[in-house]
Amino acid sequence: MSCGRFITLEGGEGAGKSTQLRALASVLRARGLEVVETREPGGSEGAEAIRAMLLTGGADRWNARAEALLFAAARADHIEKTIRPALARGAWVLSDRFLDSSRAYQGQGELTDEDILALHRIGSAGFLPDRTLFLTLPEAEAEARAHARDGDVSDRIGGRDRSFHRAVADAFVRFAADEPARVRAIDASGAAEAVTARLLAALDDLLS
Amino acid sequence: MSCGRFITLEGGEGAGKSTQLRALASVLRARGLEVVETREPGGSEGAEAIRAMLLTGGADRWNARAEALLFAAARADHIEKTIRPALARGAWVLSDRFLDSSRAYQGQGELTDEDILALHRIGSAGFLPDRTLFLTLPEAEAEARAHARDGDVSDRIGGRDRSFHRAVADAFVRFAADEPARVRAIDASGAAEAVTARLLAALDDLLS
Repeated sequence: MSCGRFITLEGGEGAGKSTQLRALASVLRARGLEVVETREPGGSEGAEAIRAMLLTGGADRWNARAEALLFAAARADHIEKTIRPALARGAWVLSDRFLDSSRAYQGQGELTDEDILALHRIGSAGFLPDRTLFLTLPEAEAEARAHARDGDVSDRIGGRDRSFHRAVADAFVRFAADEPARVRAIDASGAAEAVTARLLAALDDLLS
Repeated sequence: MSCGRFITLEGGEGAGKSTQLRALASVLRARGLEVVETREPGGSEGAEAIRAMLLTGGADRWNARAEALLFAAARADHIEKTIRPALARGAWVLSDRFLDSSRAYQGQGELTDEDILALHRIGSAGFLPDRTLFLTLPEAEAEARAHARDGDVSDRIGGRDRSFHRAVADAFVRFAADEPARVRAIDASGAAEAVTARLLAALDDLLS
């Protein structure tokens, strides 16, 4: 039996996570692996129900604390119902966002990184990915890509100002520095095929 | 301006919490106080939406960890949107269940009391009631009352076995012993009027 691996893709809006996740899944399948593509918030029936609650209503529907608890609840369900069963049967699981997004987006203000990690410990026994690929892009390029994709439409997660997005990017840089074995920063500029090749190279030790 | 107070009623099924909450509200209103009657899970728009998610679906829809996070998220919303604003304008807030129910029902198994208190600290800055009235009833009487009310119908919260309910009752006894200034055990047997009088007596210092 092959050994299942849990890989998460992280990065700000416009970094190309969704496109790269599909490309990576396709390359891994071509190597004969079973691949499960998933996302957060969501990825299981219960977690998708929580996602719908998080993304509807005005920006003030949930305060920062309730929001962090809802993300952690969705993650607990996602891990139990989708991720762990897939890993147990030897599949590779690729998730578009995971814990590090909560740390970067929710743990930099009223709540701390320690709070978000405590919620993850209580909710999911601190379960971590085998590797987290953090897609980096110069700020101007990320903004241009996000704008080209979404126009002026913004949702509760994307619709924040530039200083907020800079703080998020800084947080991801810290995570990569703190956990170099798990979190790898990947240059997401240039042609999509070149980025996919960089992501694959960063999984080389797990694939062999 | 009068000083708002936050009072919670706790106890197992059949102890008469809902009846006593209405009776207590009525007596306090007769004394000229504004009284807000509320309940958990629920008590605000967002928390009621979470309640609906918790009470629908099979018994295994949520694991214990996701459930505890959802209760904590609902509580954070309930406190921010309903309880704090009412207290700020001088009202008395009476809640049918609150944090101690989570501690008793969710913090006695896979999760510990410390876990539930950590979720409450992160979600709601550890906000506590001014007084918690814990209605106690001999086990046989509680079962007879719950059965008379609900027949054989059981929901996800009520439908558990006798040893579980005994562990819950024991937990409430410990809370009263650990925090005697906040948590008071009240004998809920006998005529409803006599029980209401006991509850009022246990609020005497807050009313004067």
